[in-house]
Amino acid sequence: MKAGKAATPVRRASIGARRNPASQAAILAAARAVLAEEGYAGFSIDAVSRRAGAGKPTIYRWWKNRADLLMEVYAAEKAGIRAVPSGDLAQDLIAHTSALWSFWCGTPSGRTFRALLAEAQSDPHALAALREKFLPERLQDVRGLFTAAAARGDIPAEEVEARLALYIGFNWFYVLTDQLEAGQASIPVAMRLIAARGGP
Amino acid sequence: MKAGKAATPVRRASIGARRNPASQAAILAAARAVLAEEGYAGFSIDAVSRRAGAGKPTIYRWWKNRADLLMEVYAAEKAGIRAVPSGDLAQDLIAHTSALWSFWCGTPSGRTFRALLAEAQSDPHALAALREKFLPERLQDVRGLFTAAAARGDIPAEEVEARLALYIGFNWFYVLTDQLEAGQASIPVAMRLIAARGGP
Repeated sequence: MKAGKAATPVRRASIGARRNPASQAAILAAARAVLAEEGYAGFSIDAVSRRAGAGKPTIYRWWKNRADLLMEVYAAEKAGIRAVPSGDLAQDLIAHTSALWSFWCGTPSGRTFRALLAEAQSDPHALAALREKFLPERLQDVRGLFTAAAARGDIPAEEVEARLALYIGFNWFYVLTDQLEAGQASIPVAMRLIAARGGP
Repeated sequence: MKAGKAATPVRRASIGARRNPASQAAILAAARAVLAEEGYAGFSIDAVSRRAGAGKPTIYRWWKNRADLLMEVYAAEKAGIRAVPSGDLAQDLIAHTSALWSFWCGTPSGRTFRALLAEAQSDPHALAALREKFLPERLQDVRGLFTAAAARGDIPAEEVEARLALYIGFNWFYVLTDQLEAGQASIPVAMRLIAARGGP
């Protein structure tokens, strides 16, 4: 959403009508800080606005709602986790799960992710954004692990969706019940089952 | 939580200080109706109170909070779904998943369940209740399918937790993204992987 009226008077020097990297970063940093300190329950556009020193209209010009802002906070942080197929699907899934859980536990991202999923249960727009944009983008890498395994003939191509759903759901179960510590022991078994060769 | 003061004046004839089956049923029915019509976003103790014609203090005397009431609404409805081991874990899981998804789609229970999981992400008490009471109770039957398979030697006993987590997560993924229709096709593949015999 870009502002069209270039002649509109801008009252703040740092955060104007045009979305620029510096002001975007300031608002995202403020959102991260609010989330880390207050958690999901205290996360509001009001709180982010106060923390960033940016007006609410400025925030709403760029992000439609709370969920939209949460998704971008999360995406910016998760960008560091990559998954590249090694030729062994089970090992790739174990490595990716470990990286993901460390990311969830070691940053406010686990909380952010839980907040996002919660938000999507009461806000249809948030659910649509989650399903049609956020998840496909975030899952692109891990989907690539499955399609590479299918291309190698290690798993049937027609089972990629079901196996991906098992993978996603396994992670969601442990993060949504806040049991990532206890769940560590289940990772290798689960990933070997998800990656098992099909057929006889 | 039972009220101890039998001598306290009761102003309503039907809903008193003692938790009795009729008033409990009236409040649960009101909660179900509010949830069906308004969804999670409109579900509040206020709304249930108005619908049931019961005072808020009465409701709070029996249920600690919104999540507590939601859990009981859900439990009362899910009581009808049973899972009895037949000797074939994959088939038992497929049958149970179909029953569960029909229950989620055909009653307000899918919405209730999503609301509960959402609530647990912002309310630590709701999360604790979910993890320590609600889930163990609701999952008792399906856990029984896995322990029966382990007792038959079909799956390793030490893999019950990981396989149960895969099972739960798979269902959560599809209900939380509101994709139970699209997910139908994945059920048989996923359940066969979860139920696969271990070892060489």
